[in-house]
Amino acid sequence: MSGRSVEDKLARCLALRAGSAPGVLLGIGDDAALLRAPGLLAVTSDVVVEGVDFDVSYTPLPFIGWKALAASLSDVAAMGGVPRFALASLQLPKRSALRLGLAIMSGLLSLARRRGVTLVGGDLSATPGPIALDVTVLGTVRRPVHRSGARPGHLLAVTGPLGLAALGLERLRVGARLHRARGLERQLVMASLRPNPDPFLGARLAPFASAMIDISDGLSTDLDHLCRASRCGAVIDEALLPLAPAAAAPVATRRRAALHGGEDYRLLLSFPARRRAALERFGAVVIGRTVARRGIDLRARDGRLRRLLPAGHRHF
Amino acid sequence: MSGRSVEDKLARCLALRAGSAPGVLLGIGDDAALLRAPGLLAVTSDVVVEGVDFDVSYTPLPFIGWKALAASLSDVAAMGGVPRFALASLQLPKRSALRLGLAIMSGLLSLARRRGVTLVGGDLSATPGPIALDVTVLGTVRRPVHRSGARPGHLLAVTGPLGLAALGLERLRVGARLHRARGLERQLVMASLRPNPDPFLGARLAPFASAMIDISDGLSTDLDHLCRASRCGAVIDEALLPLAPAAAAPVATRRRAALHGGEDYRLLLSFPARRRAALERFGAVVIGRTVARRGIDLRARDGRLRRLLPAGHRHF
Repeated sequence: MSGRSVEDKLARCLALRAGSAPGVLLGIGDDAALLRAPGLLAVTSDVVVEGVDFDVSYTPLPFIGWKALAASLSDVAAMGGVPRFALASLQLPKRSALRLGLAIMSGLLSLARRRGVTLVGGDLSATPGPIALDVTVLGTVRRPVHRSGARPGHLLAVTGPLGLAALGLERLRVGARLHRARGLERQLVMASLRPNPDPFLGARLAPFASAMIDISDGLSTDLDHLCRASRCGAVIDEALLPLAPAAAAPVATRRRAALHGGEDYRLLLSFPARRRAALERFGAVVIGRTVARRGIDLRARDGRLRRLLPAGHRHF
Repeated sequence: MSGRSVEDKLARCLALRAGSAPGVLLGIGDDAALLRAPGLLAVTSDVVVEGVDFDVSYTPLPFIGWKALAASLSDVAAMGGVPRFALASLQLPKRSALRLGLAIMSGLLSLARRRGVTLVGGDLSATPGPIALDVTVLGTVRRPVHRSGARPGHLLAVTGPLGLAALGLERLRVGARLHRARGLERQLVMASLRPNPDPFLGARLAPFASAMIDISDGLSTDLDHLCRASRCGAVIDEALLPLAPAAAAPVATRRRAALHGGEDYRLLLSFPARRRAALERFGAVVIGRTVARRGIDLRARDGRLRRLLPAGHRHF
């Protein structure tokens, strides 16, 4: 608060820009934030590291903050919660820490503002290594949905097309750049750099869902998580998968991206078949069903089943 | 949860060891933790980075986790709260991430267990850089105490001797090592490596305090924070400062450590003089008083005043 050190300056700027909100009794600037959040609380953290989770050679700095917050918002939504408050811990090189910090946090604050989330705290440390950002989000939950609630015979659905972020990332890796991308290429690149999950959708779907998870590591991997937690298996219909637009890539590439590509932040949910109409009204797309025997199978258009192994993003 | 990737293995081990507690409806293992914490909530994050906040050449790995949690517990206590839940985000080199993660987290869990705090979540990312750990703590608060509540004429007190951690750090930097330290040297080294703030003390002092802050960056710096937030100044009596034991160092060194040394995690609080007896029963030691004019003065034994500038830990 003295306005002299880098962390004080950053804290001041962020406190001014973070604003206030119902439930925030005290935001940035004291030893801790003071919040009032009656009922159930969902809490999650998501850390991103330069060179591992993002590449500064093609990621505008504000998008680092935006995407880190988006990932945590999506986790809260996947519990059936509505994200409300965020804390952000930054690690920045000493040189130009203030400039980097303000740029990264401007993206986080921009998404926070749009989504009704208030930045209430965080921390800053110098680092001799890569830039890193850990975002913690707290949300309120009326009707929590666990990963573990699916029962055999439930339908499986996702909340939108899959694979766009993975196709965008491939483009970026071979030289596409946001500032010169147009049309569909821009759409794919933006899906990778600045995902925009709907933080209210999880709470809307929650009353109908038996299990829910967000697809951050790829459908094959996150469906595996859901099935293991629920002690069941699944059959996915290849023909039902909502793929990226046809012009984006050959169908085999789009299918691979839909099955294994990460960071789309769509929701994957299971539900009893009688809920289908209600869920489709919210845009959920049925892609298969859960089964009693373990493991996940993919049903091709010719009806043949083949085993679908988790092959999404591995952090290690 | 698949038990195959490093993060799944670590999450499993931590979920088993974290246990459960009242208020934790769902801990590690889903998209987010689900908590019930009625009333006011204090939330804070504290990030530590290898080579900046700790040195692995003399810090046993478990103490990294212990100390990071201790720092956040202390922040919650300084708001008058009682810490309840923690999330820990780790950045670890790919090589030996599981071993490092388990060792670091064993220390965090050890302190958590002793202090009634439950680990409910976190994240793990590989890093090409230094080890880092961001700990978020949530606590419940009945009677919040801000930094900004001091009024001129209030007494200032601290909750124990100051400067031990700084003297311990000096010893470590010139070659002292925990495994061969004995007696007072061991006490100093432990004060630096494994601080053990009382997480319940803040809530006990809260009904009597007008302002409170934890001394993490050093008395001169944190008193400056408190005074600036409260728009007042202070006079500290040199003779009243509770120093490290006399055998630890010459008095000038101990005084410097008490004034500017960080990481003791004592509480600094202000309160109306009529509360003095109540606070002294909790072990608070009066060191001076707040005054209307800005700035902080140190009164020497001969009665002369000199200006005390904030010279504690600067992160940048």
